[in-house]
Amino acid sequence: MRRDVSSDFIKKLDVEKLSKLTYIPENRIIGAIERKTLQYVHAKPELFRFDKPISNIEAGTSVFLEPFDIVRGFPKISRILMLHPGVAKHFSTIKTVLVEEKMNGYNVRVALIGDRILGITRGGYVCPYTTDKINDVISGDFFIDFPDLVLCGEMVGPDNPYVPKSFYDIESLEFFAFDIREKITGRPLPVMKRRELLAGYGIKSVRLFGEFEVSETHIKVEKIIRDFGKTLNEGVVIKDPDMQLSPIKYTSSQSNCADLRYAFEFYNDYGRDFFFPRVCREAFQSVEWDEDDTQRKERCHRLGESILLPMTRTIENRKKGERIGEIVQIRIKDLKTADDFQDHLRLLGIDAIFEEPISIGNEFIIKIKKINHSTSDKTDSVFKGEMWS
Amino acid sequence: MRRDVSSDFIKKLDVEKLSKLTYIPENRIIGAIERKTLQYVHAKPELFRFDKPISNIEAGTSVFLEPFDIVRGFPKISRILMLHPGVAKHFSTIKTVLVEEKMNGYNVRVALIGDRILGITRGGYVCPYTTDKINDVISGDFFIDFPDLVLCGEMVGPDNPYVPKSFYDIESLEFFAFDIREKITGRPLPVMKRRELLAGYGIKSVRLFGEFEVSETHIKVEKIIRDFGKTLNEGVVIKDPDMQLSPIKYTSSQSNCADLRYAFEFYNDYGRDFFFPRVCREAFQSVEWDEDDTQRKERCHRLGESILLPMTRTIENRKKGERIGEIVQIRIKDLKTADDFQDHLRLLGIDAIFEEPISIGNEFIIKIKKINHSTSDKTDSVFKGEMWS
Repeated sequence: MRRDVSSDFIKKLDVEKLSKLTYIPENRIIGAIERKTLQYVHAKPELFRFDKPISNIEAGTSVFLEPFDIVRGFPKISRILMLHPGVAKHFSTIKTVLVEEKMNGYNVRVALIGDRILGITRGGYVCPYTTDKINDVISGDFFIDFPDLVLCGEMVGPDNPYVPKSFYDIESLEFFAFDIREKITGRPLPVMKRRELLAGYGIKSVRLFGEFEVSETHIKVEKIIRDFGKTLNEGVVIKDPDMQLSPIKYTSSQSNCADLRYAFEFYNDYGRDFFFPRVCREAFQSVEWDEDDTQRKERCHRLGESILLPMTRTIENRKKGERIGEIVQIRIKDLKTADDFQDHLRLLGIDAIFEEPISIGNEFIIKIKKINHSTSDKTDSVFKGEMWS
Repeated sequence: MRRDVSSDFIKKLDVEKLSKLTYIPENRIIGAIERKTLQYVHAKPELFRFDKPISNIEAGTSVFLEPFDIVRGFPKISRILMLHPGVAKHFSTIKTVLVEEKMNGYNVRVALIGDRILGITRGGYVCPYTTDKINDVISGDFFIDFPDLVLCGEMVGPDNPYVPKSFYDIESLEFFAFDIREKITGRPLPVMKRRELLAGYGIKSVRLFGEFEVSETHIKVEKIIRDFGKTLNEGVVIKDPDMQLSPIKYTSSQSNCADLRYAFEFYNDYGRDFFFPRVCREAFQSVEWDEDDTQRKERCHRLGESILLPMTRTIENRKKGERIGEIVQIRIKDLKTADDFQDHLRLLGIDAIFEEPISIGNEFIIKIKKINHSTSDKTDSVFKGEMWS
C-alpha cells in the first residue's frame, strides 16, 4: 500500500533529470522517495523536498515540478565555541575575513520559479505568507536580470509567524540578504560583489562589521559581541570574502539565553538536545573571556533564570487552565493569504488558532496562537500525579 | 565468530533451570545471550548479568553459576515531581505510608552465594571492594538464618569509589539497609518487619521519618525536605508498609543541584539526558512550593551555578594541562582487594590510576583517579578550534 503511494509520487518527478543535475544515482532518488527522505509536498506549487541530506545535496533543497527547477538548501553553518584559535585555524589559507551580522528572524530563500517569485523556508517548503511579503519588500527587477540566482536572507520584524520575538526597529517584516547562490549548484557569490549587486536593486543586506586580518579577528569579534551588551543581537557570521571557505558563526550569551527562555517555555515540545549545546557555549565563552567571579556568577544567574523562569511560568499558566502556546502575528493585504498560510501550517503539522483579522490601514493583522500540545499534556500528567520515569 | 563466542557462553549456563525459575522462555534466554542483553561476566565468581530487563526480570539481575543462584535486580523506583496529588493517587488503596530517607551513596545488594557473602552493585556485578567492606560492617549471622534473602541498601561514607562526595558523619563506609527481598522472586518484606529483623542482627537501616496518613503525606514530606535545608540529604522514599504497592521517591533541590554539579564537571562523559529531568524537577518543585520571586530567583541562581561553575572549572583545569578526572578513595585491610578492584574497574571499562597505598592503623587508604577521557577530548577539540556541530 505504502509502496503504491510512493510509485504515484515517483511518476510525478523527472527522476532522470534530477539525477543528471544533482549527480544522485536514479535508484538512490527512488529509494529516497520510498523512505520519504525525499518528500512529495502536496501544495501549490507542487514540489519535492529533501527532508535530510542525500549525497552532496543539502536538506531543505526543493525540486519544483511545474516548471522543473531546483533550489538548493541553505547549508548548515558551523559554529565555533572559542574564537581563538578556531577562527585562525579555519581561515588559515586566507589573509582577511568579512564579518556580517547574524540576525534574529527566520531563514528564507527567494527564487524565481516559472513566473513567480517564491519565499522558501529553511525546510524547503514554499511559505505563502513569506511569498506574499517578499513580493512586497523587494523589487522583482533582480530576478529579471538574474533568473538563476537565489537570494538568501533573514525575514525580520514583529509580523513574523515563525520566530515571534523581535527587537529591531522594523514595522512589519523585512528581508535582509546574507547570500546570493546559484539555484542548482548552490555556489555563492563573493561577499562584496553580492552586497554591491543588491544595493543596486535596493535590496537590504545584513550589517557588515568590517574586514579584518584573520589573525586579529578573534579580538575584533569579541569586541563586537561585547558591544551588543544587553541587546538581543544574535551574533556574527565570519566569511571568506571569496566564499571559497565555508563561513562560521559565533553567538552572544544574550542570544543563547533567549533561545533557552523560548525552549523552556515549551519545555516538552523542544528536544532535550536543544539545551546541552547552549550551555556548553556559555561555559566556553566564559572561559575564553576570562571572566572574574562576579561576571561568571552573573552569567550563571542569567542562565538559571533563562531556564527556570519560563518553565515555572508555563506550569503556573497551565495550572490556571490556560492553553500553552505562543502568539505570533501576520500582517497581510489579502485575507486569502491567511487561508493559504493556515493550510501551510496544517501541512507542517502545527496546530494554530487564527483570531479575527484586525484592520489597520489597507492591511489586516491576524494574531495566531500556536498550540504546544506536548508541553500542555506533559504538565497535566504531572498535575495528575503520574510518575515521571 | 560472534555466534561461536555466544555458544561458548550458553554452554556455561543451565538455561532450562533459569527458564523455570524466571519464566523466561529458553529461546528468549539464548537470544538474549547472543544479543548480549544477558551478559557473561568473566570474573570471580563467574556470572551472567541482565544488562536490560527481559520479561519481568529487572536489569541488574545476576545469575551465578557455581553454585547456581539468582539475585534479582533492584527495581527502579518511580519518581514523583509534585507531591500533591501524586502521593494520594499512587497510594489511594491504603491508609498510611512509611517515609524513609533516600541516602546519597551507592546501591548494593548483599547475598549469600555458596559460602560467601557478596556485595553486588546496581548493574549486577560483584564488586570485590564492596564485598570486602560489607563483610566487615555486617555480621554474617543474618545469612545463616536467612540464606534466601537479599539485603538491599546504600553504601555511604568517604571511602566510596563510586559516588565520591560524602557529607554524613561516617568514618569509612557503612551500609544502611532499605529493603529485604527474596533472592529469586525479588519479593520484599513489609517495612517494619524488615527494620525489626535487621535491628536484631545489629544491621543499620536508613532513617525512618514516620508513618503518615496518605492524605497528609504531601505536607509531611514537604516539611521533611524543607528541614533538610542546605544539607545535601538526597530525599525520601515513600512506601506502602506492606510493600504491596511500589514505593515512590522525591528528592531535594540541593540533591538535584549536586547531581548537576557533578555531571557538568564531566560534561561530555554524562548523557545529555541527565540534565533535562533534573531541571524539570526544579521547576515543578518551585511551583508546588508556591515560591515568591526572591525564592524562585535564588533557585534559578543555584541551578545556573550548579551547571556553569563546575563546567568552566573543568575547562580551565584542562587549559592548564590537567587531566580531567575525579579522585575517589578506598580503605582496605588487604592490598589484594585493591588489585581485585582494579580488575573490576577494568571490567567496567573505567580508566583509573591507583596511587600508592597510605597506611593508616591496620588499614590502607588508596586514592584513585578515574579519568574522564571524553570530557578531556571534547575540551581539547574546542581548544584546537574544531567546530562543535
